[in-house]
Amino acid sequence: MEKIQVAILGATGMVGQKFIILLEGHPYFEIKEVVASPKSAGHKYASICSSRQNVPVPENVGRLTVKRTTEELESHILFSGLDSSVAGPIEEAYAEKGHFVISNSMNHRMDPDVPIIIPEVNHDHLDIVKTQKYKGGIVTNSNCSTMFLAMALAPIHREFGVEAVQVTTMQAISGAGHPGIPSLDILANVIPFIGGEEEKMETETQKILGKLVDNRIIPAPIKISAQCNRVPVFDGHLETLSIKLKNKADVEQVKTVLEDFSGLPQELRLPSAPKKPLLLIGDRDRPQPVKDVWLNRGMSTVIGRVRECSVFDIKMVIMGHNTV
Amino acid sequence: MEKIQVAILGATGMVGQKFIILLEGHPYFEIKEVVASPKSAGHKYASICSSRQNVPVPENVGRLTVKRTTEELESHILFSGLDSSVAGPIEEAYAEKGHFVISNSMNHRMDPDVPIIIPEVNHDHLDIVKTQKYKGGIVTNSNCSTMFLAMALAPIHREFGVEAVQVTTMQAISGAGHPGIPSLDILANVIPFIGGEEEKMETETQKILGKLVDNRIIPAPIKISAQCNRVPVFDGHLETLSIKLKNKADVEQVKTVLEDFSGLPQELRLPSAPKKPLLLIGDRDRPQPVKDVWLNRGMSTVIGRVRECSVFDIKMVIMGHNTV
Amino acid sequence: MEKIQVAILGATGMVGQKFIILLEGHPYFEIKEVVASPKSAGHKYASICSSRQNVPVPENVGRLTVKRTTEELESHILFSGLDSSVAGPIEEAYAEKGHFVISNSMNHRMDPDVPIIIPEVNHDHLDIVKTQKYKGGIVTNSNCSTMFLAMALAPIHREFGVEAVQVTTMQAISGAGHPGIPSLDILANVIPFIGGEEEKMETETQKILGKLVDNRIIPAPIKISAQCNRVPVFDGHLETLSIKLKNKADVEQVKTVLEDFSGLPQELRLPSAPKKPLLLIGDRDRPQPVKDVWLNRGMSTVIGRVRECSVFDIKMVIMGHNTV
Amino acid sequence: MEKIQVAILGATGMVGQKFIILLEGHPYFEIKEVVASPKSAGHKYASICSSRQNVPVPENVGRLTVKRTTEELESHILFSGLDSSVAGPIEEAYAEKGHFVISNSMNHRMDPDVPIIIPEVNHDHLDIVKTQKYKGGIVTNSNCSTMFLAMALAPIHREFGVEAVQVTTMQAISGAGHPGIPSLDILANVIPFIGGEEEKMETETQKILGKLVDNRIIPAPIKISAQCNRVPVFDGHLETLSIKLKNKADVEQVKTVLEDFSGLPQELRLPSAPKKPLLLIGDRDRPQPVKDVWLNRGMSTVIGRVRECSVFDIKMVIMGHNTV
Repeated sequence: MEKIQVAILGATGMVGQKFIILLEGHPYFEIKEVVASPKSAGHKYASICSSRQNVPVPENVGRLTVKRTTEELESHILFSGLDSSVAGPIEEAYAEKGHFVISNSMNHRMDPDVPIIIPEVNHDHLDIVKTQKYKGGIVTNSNCSTMFLAMALAPIHREFGVEAVQVTTMQAISGAGHPGIPSLDILANVIPFIGGEEEKMETETQKILGKLVDNRIIPAPIKISAQCNRVPVFDGHLETLSIKLKNKADVEQVKTVLEDFSGLPQELRLPSAPKKPLLLIGDRDRPQPVKDVWLNRGMSTVIGRVRECSVFDIKMVIMGHNTV
Repeated sequence: MEKIQVAILGATGMVGQKFIILLEGHPYFEIKEVVASPKSAGHKYASICSSRQNVPVPENVGRLTVKRTTEELESHILFSGLDSSVAGPIEEAYAEKGHFVISNSMNHRMDPDVPIIIPEVNHDHLDIVKTQKYKGGIVTNSNCSTMFLAMALAPIHREFGVEAVQVTTMQAISGAGHPGIPSLDILANVIPFIGGEEEKMETETQKILGKLVDNRIIPAPIKISAQCNRVPVFDGHLETLSIKLKNKADVEQVKTVLEDFSGLPQELRLPSAPKKPLLLIGDRDRPQPVKDVWLNRGMSTVIGRVRECSVFDIKMVIMGHNTV
Repeated sequence: MEKIQVAILGATGMVGQKFIILLEGHPYFEIKEVVASPKSAGHKYASICSSRQNVPVPENVGRLTVKRTTEELESHILFSGLDSSVAGPIEEAYAEKGHFVISNSMNHRMDPDVPIIIPEVNHDHLDIVKTQKYKGGIVTNSNCSTMFLAMALAPIHREFGVEAVQVTTMQAISGAGHPGIPSLDILANVIPFIGGEEEKMETETQKILGKLVDNRIIPAPIKISAQCNRVPVFDGHLETLSIKLKNKADVEQVKTVLEDFSGLPQELRLPSAPKKPLLLIGDRDRPQPVKDVWLNRGMSTVIGRVRECSVFDIKMVIMGHNTV
Repeated sequence: MEKIQVAILGATGMVGQKFIILLEGHPYFEIKEVVASPKSAGHKYASICSSRQNVPVPENVGRLTVKRTTEELESHILFSGLDSSVAGPIEEAYAEKGHFVISNSMNHRMDPDVPIIIPEVNHDHLDIVKTQKYKGGIVTNSNCSTMFLAMALAPIHREFGVEAVQVTTMQAISGAGHPGIPSLDILANVIPFIGGEEEKMETETQKILGKLVDNRIIPAPIKISAQCNRVPVFDGHLETLSIKLKNKADVEQVKTVLEDFSGLPQELRLPSAPKKPLLLIGDRDRPQPVKDVWLNRGMSTVIGRVRECSVFDIKMVIMGHNTV
């Protein structure tokens, strides 16, 4: 099988670099173009990319000459790691020219005709792309703290119905990129605020768990209240959840549903999909970022402490690797 | 006025040392006896106390010879910083001999006739001490994460009624004493579990906010669900709260009630009482342990981000100094 | 006595803010003018200064309107906390107009006619200011890691002669200002490089410990080799020293000389001078940044572990508060 | 080829667990016996080993029943991770019975007839084992901070002669085991003292670099002065070195000698030997523990910033993974 040629938008940023690492040796995709800001354009990628990833730049990518965001691209599929300050119009322009943009930026996530796709949860939402005004299309992935929440809620919502969720996050500094959070602000400290994050977690989760009706996504009628905090942790967002169910279920039933969860990527045995998208961990003081963030190569949402809640029905702690 | 002579039980531990520091130069109390385990007994306090507090041992205390926990004491009032592994029977024994024990240990907190006193909140609960079987008496203070929660809820409960609270804590390592948490376990990490802490926060808060009826404390009918985490912070427990009110109130009304809160210690202008037991802070990313833990000399519960909750009614972030 | 009016150059930066805090309530000086970059100029100081210092801006300073760096100033004495990227010409311009500039910037430190003054060590170097080409004058203070080194070496050099020093530093993140070091780069890490710091420590120390001969400073003939590291510590630069003496001395003799050290500020009993500029600490695992940085209100260089060196003569650990 | 059966002494400790991980799937060795303290003895290894390593216990080892340290063992070769408080007599007893003990403990390191072996540096020292009074024998490995120092010095000493070394270490918390350093003592702090470490670095390095003459090791006549510090880093000891050479060499010559270094394990292509025991890194702010500790799977000593020293001849920064 010939590999599909793809381009990386924002290739020199933290997210762009992650795309490059994750796509290295991918059986379906091959990076043929790297696109970045004018000051990088024209240079060999290897010569300007000061890797934050502690892994070498793949040779075939390092050899590519960086293109401008206004240039014509040959690849049909574009992975966008553009910063949200510029991503909006650039992604639109490429979609209008016929490209299919898979974006990590927040800019178009809440557009009514742009789906936020988590393959395990709502791949059917892809259908609304054809209603977009673009010749090509835009799909987005979710904010990472949202993704872990949506992943954990999806099987519970499907089986028992979720009425309300209280979630408090403790998020890693790598989520803010580099340079990101100054060390003076976070060393031995907690910052109980992340701009826009609480709103994103509430609305994006409702959209992801929503239903596709007549080519429109009806958000899930789940009340969600998020409180987001930054903690001095490298990688791994931890979240405490308290969940109110529609149809009562006990702790063991919920655990079973979480254990058994699998989605389309697991059915199709996609090469980058973890065998178990949700990983239950038994020890009472887990998951922990340092100890558990690399379980299943960082691909699973790790869940621990599933127990009764004296206010709602079920409490639990979830964690996922925020940059994988 | 002559000062009241007091003794410190568990004088060499972290809590005992805090008592000694906080009572130094106190206008009403004077430490005359220090009591500790057999291996310290018989030595001058100064010679055995390897201070964890970065402040020198007060001279008059350093000169005292450490007594055993089985010895007769002259002081009527005993401040107990005994470890909970031994505090129970020792405190009882002294109470039976007629002493009045003010304890920081958890052992007797949930005894029906022992009050958990926060002077600003429930000084009237002191009345039940006279129903105790002891010739003297035992009163306790609360777990520190409970104290901040009870302080913040007290005025809201009094004014609007609180039906339910979801609380997630991010607690400092000093709360676990010394040696406490190994650095390998908490550096750049979060531990989503603190043994017994969630249960204590739920039951102690209900007791503290309860009503005294016929010399019995009727716990407040507030549903409380706590999720406790340890974070790599020196001092200052941070808590995210989501509160369901009985009688609806908007954010401004809740803020006013918090601002205006004051209790008996403020009325009596007690020397160690902060002018404002609750301190509202305006910036959207506060309170933070590093920046705010010493506001009002660590004596106030600092409250920020009071805002609407999309699941319950009001969300907020609270923080207090856990060892002051 | 009427107070001397002073101005602060670079008043909104981290160093400028420190000047303002340290001069608050000073018996001799009063801040009458604050000067900063064009984007701050014209605003009330209180309205634009997002304090990094966790202490409120003094009211009398907050009320001042920020002036531009090109404006005429009334104060004779200017404290400059300007960033080294702009400090050079601005400080010169003011010196030419007749002002006396006391600068924290590195720009003019190595000018042959500009002294680097540590009052306890080399106040006599002030004499060379009159040889400057300016109508006014410029004096500088040293780099902070240099200051602790020069302070510790001064009495030893005076008494026994120092031939060579090996110094390795472990420097706090606050030394890099705000935003300074990204947390992703320093959390649970060490960075074994600080741009220009090693050269500064070597040349500045030689100059400070040098002799004034015919209105010229002859650098001290001490070989110095510095290796500088950044560590995840808030405040307090720690340095390990190994010292080769000209005239042999044992550990006790060196300790005595350090203990007895005092300088002009101590003789004059200057209000901001510590009683003991060098503070010896006995415990074998001290000084430590967290525990000792505020000894003597952060004004002393704290010295521990004075012991024999198997390569040179004397080893020791020194530490000082880098932003006080 | 049949594998050689080995036993692990102190199998439940941090070092013992490392031995087990490193020997998993080893082509020459197979763990057949695990030995630990009486309280573990008699239990299946898997049931009592609360792994600190974040990797599962190998199945074949987990199945073994833990033996006592007084039991007869079948394996000829014993890897000892015993704590130094008990290692001395236990290792001796087994050596007397005829076993060959490879020990990670300090107890016998300085015995005149026990070699401290770094295979790349001094495998010829193994010869003195036959002069031991035991029926079997004891060999030791070095303290880990010593190992990196000896590895970096070995090729320089061989080529140019080393006269003196000043070394300051910044050592990771994992070097102190678990529970090890309390978080309250090291969070955002540096502790400028590690008990016995400076002496070990000085004497062990001289022994390792020494010459074997008439079945005796003559320590290398290198003056070494070490200053050891603990920093809040997980893994990776960093060391700043200043080296005085006998025969002068410039920076490029020293770099070449370091680059070209290889030893017996490289010649024999031993399965666990890194291809390059010394790894030079070019960036001026490296090596760093977080970024470089896993280079070459943690098996190499990483060296950076090789440059001239203004007191001695050559300065450099070295780092190695302290628990691999």
